[in-house]
Amino acid sequence: MMRVGGAGETAHKVSFEAPRKFTTAFSSDLKETFFPDDPFYDFKGKSFPVKAKKALQYFVPIFQWLPNYNLKLFMYDLLAGITIASLAIPQGISYAKLANIPAVIGLYSSFVPPLIYAVFGSSKYLAVGTVASSSLLIAATIQTKVNPAQDPQLYLNLVFTATLISGLIELVLGVFRLGILVDFLSHSTITGFMGGTALIICLQQLKGIFGLKHFTPHTDVISVISAIFKNRGEIRWESTLIGVAFLIILQLARFLKQKKPKLFWVSAITPMFVVIIGCVFAYLWHAEKHGIAIVGELKKGINPPSLKNIDFDRKYISAPLRAGFITAMVALAEGIAIGRSFAILQNEQIDGNKEMIAFGLMNIVGSVTSCYLTTGPFSKTAVNYNAGCKTQFSNVVMSICMMLTLLFLAPLFSYTPLVALSAIIMSAMLGLIEYDKAYHLFKTDKFDFIICMAAFIGVAFISMDVGLMLSVGLAIMRALLYIARPASSKLANIPDTSLYRDVEQYPGAIDIPKTLVLQIGSPIYFANAGYMRERILRWVRYEKGNRLDGDDIEYVLLDLGGVSSIDMTGVETLVEIRKSLEVKDIKVVLVNPRLEVMEKLIVTNFIEKIGKERVYLSIEDAIDGCKFSLSPERYL
Amino acid sequence: MMRVGGAGETAHKVSFEAPRKFTTAFSSDLKETFFPDDPFYDFKGKSFPVKAKKALQYFVPIFQWLPNYNLKLFMYDLLAGITIASLAIPQGISYAKLANIPAVIGLYSSFVPPLIYAVFGSSKYLAVGTVASSSLLIAATIQTKVNPAQDPQLYLNLVFTATLISGLIELVLGVFRLGILVDFLSHSTITGFMGGTALIICLQQLKGIFGLKHFTPHTDVISVISAIFKNRGEIRWESTLIGVAFLIILQLARFLKQKKPKLFWVSAITPMFVVIIGCVFAYLWHAEKHGIAIVGELKKGINPPSLKNIDFDRKYISAPLRAGFITAMVALAEGIAIGRSFAILQNEQIDGNKEMIAFGLMNIVGSVTSCYLTTGPFSKTAVNYNAGCKTQFSNVVMSICMMLTLLFLAPLFSYTPLVALSAIIMSAMLGLIEYDKAYHLFKTDKFDFIICMAAFIGVAFISMDVGLMLSVGLAIMRALLYIARPASSKLANIPDTSLYRDVEQYPGAIDIPKTLVLQIGSPIYFANAGYMRERILRWVRYEKGNRLDGDDIEYVLLDLGGVSSIDMTGVETLVEIRKSLEVKDIKVVLVNPRLEVMEKLIVTNFIEKIGKERVYLSIEDAIDGCKFSLSPERYL
Repeated sequence: MMRVGGAGETAHKVSFEAPRKFTTAFSSDLKETFFPDDPFYDFKGKSFPVKAKKALQYFVPIFQWLPNYNLKLFMYDLLAGITIASLAIPQGISYAKLANIPAVIGLYSSFVPPLIYAVFGSSKYLAVGTVASSSLLIAATIQTKVNPAQDPQLYLNLVFTATLISGLIELVLGVFRLGILVDFLSHSTITGFMGGTALIICLQQLKGIFGLKHFTPHTDVISVISAIFKNRGEIRWESTLIGVAFLIILQLARFLKQKKPKLFWVSAITPMFVVIIGCVFAYLWHAEKHGIAIVGELKKGINPPSLKNIDFDRKYISAPLRAGFITAMVALAEGIAIGRSFAILQNEQIDGNKEMIAFGLMNIVGSVTSCYLTTGPFSKTAVNYNAGCKTQFSNVVMSICMMLTLLFLAPLFSYTPLVALSAIIMSAMLGLIEYDKAYHLFKTDKFDFIICMAAFIGVAFISMDVGLMLSVGLAIMRALLYIARPASSKLANIPDTSLYRDVEQYPGAIDIPKTLVLQIGSPIYFANAGYMRERILRWVRYEKGNRLDGDDIEYVLLDLGGVSSIDMTGVETLVEIRKSLEVKDIKVVLVNPRLEVMEKLIVTNFIEKIGKERVYLSIEDAIDGCKFSLSPERYL
Repeated sequence: MMRVGGAGETAHKVSFEAPRKFTTAFSSDLKETFFPDDPFYDFKGKSFPVKAKKALQYFVPIFQWLPNYNLKLFMYDLLAGITIASLAIPQGISYAKLANIPAVIGLYSSFVPPLIYAVFGSSKYLAVGTVASSSLLIAATIQTKVNPAQDPQLYLNLVFTATLISGLIELVLGVFRLGILVDFLSHSTITGFMGGTALIICLQQLKGIFGLKHFTPHTDVISVISAIFKNRGEIRWESTLIGVAFLIILQLARFLKQKKPKLFWVSAITPMFVVIIGCVFAYLWHAEKHGIAIVGELKKGINPPSLKNIDFDRKYISAPLRAGFITAMVALAEGIAIGRSFAILQNEQIDGNKEMIAFGLMNIVGSVTSCYLTTGPFSKTAVNYNAGCKTQFSNVVMSICMMLTLLFLAPLFSYTPLVALSAIIMSAMLGLIEYDKAYHLFKTDKFDFIICMAAFIGVAFISMDVGLMLSVGLAIMRALLYIARPASSKLANIPDTSLYRDVEQYPGAIDIPKTLVLQIGSPIYFANAGYMRERILRWVRYEKGNRLDGDDIEYVLLDLGGVSSIDMTGVETLVEIRKSLEVKDIKVVLVNPRLEVMEKLIVTNFIEKIGKERVYLSIEDAIDGCKFSLSPERYL
């Protein structure tokens, strides 16, 4: 048979096409980097008006869904919007307190940003709102520069500045399609970060539950516990009793939701219920006289402008810059992940970069209309989805509810006892510590577990930003390690087939006489070139010692099918490997180099040096070719 | 035929072995990470005394070569040793001046460290000595804290401290086998860094050539040129004339070496010749009276101890720490690369980690015996190799020559004119700017060229450490980009074969009806999981639009042969991809998952979810399996 018997030249042809032009290769790389989802695919071959309309719909999604909006959809959105509004009021007040800013700012933040998101956002289910982790992060960072008790106005100004910076970063990342940065926050990091944040926020709430007056500005577990211990004389039994009672109510509602998912609305309105009960109680009982602090003054009226509050004073700017950067990353990672996971439930797609632009715009506009950082919190979004929302319009409904509250009802909430807010926050946070997920990581991937725990422990015992950076650092280290130590394996023939597979995985595979087949499974370049050389030479050394039949290796086949690219250091390493092996009378044969690798090997004259006849399209061809030259007489 | 006709169950068996234990997998990973060269391979099954001897020889290489040492080898080493000593004297004095420390320290540095290297070093050809780039780097960093003109003793102490730190870092990296860190300095970075350093060092030497008295402590091109311009009144024609004359002599010798490589020794001894001529001339002509500065006092005697000079004062420690860290990295990268490239010429192997230990020990001992940073400089090593050295003993010979010089001849060199030193440094540096290599990079790999130029321009116009970090940062960014945007390609059948190859590379390949075959060529994990999902869904969308025969995709085959590992985010993404495709009535089939991936897929129950019958060993098997279920009646 021709195919089995023939030497190299009769085997299947390898493509030695001239390399693509630099510009072609480069623009293809650029496209893969920034437009992996190819957003303009639909635009091809359309007329200009159609294109313009499509572009408008692409950049401003409201033009996509509003024209098809109808009464039936509206009824769904109305119900969902009211439900999330009832959640937004207690959450807004609570998280604002967590950020050490006036409670009304939390309400403002659920008025303007949802409107902006409704116009630019691409997720149907996402409900806009403030989140606990970012609230605490902003507070912890800005407190390093300004004490909110001593200079509340300056502190608030810096919070707005941080919000503006966060929005700008989100916008820039979205416009330049740098969603790739958010890719480096892995699920494991987020799980650990959320868990750690939830833990320290819970501990912080003990201040409110116990009714303490003095506390610590630090967020780590040790500081918080020792602050409680130091101020244990201030613990008020009235406050503690009420707090625990509220907590039990809230946890029961959560428990009910878990048992009967259809009753999710009970858990959704419980916080509002707790706030109302708390207000009534505080008003009738004159709670303040019994040592139960209340929210205090809450002015009527919608958001005042806050452009003049933005403060870029050199003396303080480092704090809002840091807070803005980290919250932007965390908020994006959380918001996009949440939007995406609900979209998948309905088999729809979310454009991460478009989401970033929407988040950026809503925070920029928010920062000049007295709002602080908002994103798409999980709890609110889940409620929105479960309440049956159909489009972004539910955010508009929530926004209108919030406007009415601000215009008419706000002063009523001034009686809200702080202990009720603490109970609400604590209850929300308890749900974010995902023990089972951490355990699952432990069972399935130890390194992911370490990354997760680094975030958790770092956040809990050092600080939120250190924990986050520690975890991301570890994850990137692992990524670099993957690069620096790529897997390579020895292949052998699976009996009765033309397949060559890893001998470790398929122990039954049979070696080919005088030939060693190695599979390289990664780009070869500077960070792993040295390792590759050592590893390949080691494979050869091993084989020479271990072949039973006294066979000496005469050919090393490198299966490059898995090598997606190669750089100059990589090519130089191949040259070195070839040199080292040829001295030992071992010939190097390449199998199936991919497009990019082949281009580089041609440009650097490597192919010319080893000869085109030493490059094969498949391992089988290569082995036939080698066999032929090992004992040509057999085939002649 | 069974094979073609059969459904999934008759195809070749995929291995669904139970996952390896965590400890097994982990220790195998550890070994690959830290012991890729498997240094203890020879130890297996040997008796204890043999093992002990081998271990001693492994850790202290002198025990390996000294027992077999003989007179013939010694004659070669003697000649080579004398030759490099003649180079070490002028280089030692010159580079010490470059580091702003007394000239005699440069001589000391060629006495103790070579002895240590001879004992612990594993490269036969490496010649130990000081290098220009590290000398300048130390000077530039320590000058930020202490002015060498105002407080020379403190300055010198900090130089010793930096040397100690550098040695400790090298030792630790070696002991913990962290050579992996040095892997991140690519050839392109080193080329750019060396070129940039050479350029600024050349410019610095204009001070000596012009005989200027005032100059700038900064190293960047702009500062240096403007300093020359500002002090142009001080330019002395006598100095300039002599400097240019020396430079011409040195360059002619270099030119001669390039034309007739056998005459390398002429170029090797020319610096010594220039120094001697300079000394005689300065002595006879009373050069100082004519405005030509000389080295000045050079005491007789070998290295005094300098342990008490080591200074860890908090006020200054940041500078030696920085200098120590960066010089350690650069010195290691240079020394190991050079040792390795000469070893390859003789088909021998260098153990990078062992080299680090040797470098570390020689700098630690050096720092307490009045030496400053040494490594394996290229020029000296090349001379050593060309002079025919056979073992590490040539370093011992050089060391003895240096001792004799220090004991008897040192005062003679006090007449060396600074202009001669400047000419020597300048001439050495001109050879380090590799235009042709940069051009080659430009032609073959644009991104490598950018990495190289970042180092060059950064060093030349900002500072040495910034340039280095910029370049390494870019290289790591590219590495992360490789991870974040791995290549994937559509495969199709090459006619008349069972091969499936990239359609972009092999345009003649033919699509399989109703089936899309995708090859994924990289680990799937958090940094690229999002991209992978987008990319795969995009492939499917494209195919649905482009298949001419109205075929709709019913199967997506994912060839995982190139996926060397997967993390939890990656598995979750596979689950999402499957979900998204199943909704569109497209089935996902996996082909040839590798060992580590299969383990993860089993542990996370993914295999169970999609069913074992959806996993195949080869694309051909998978297609047969799919065909069968597409139209079973054809096969029944």
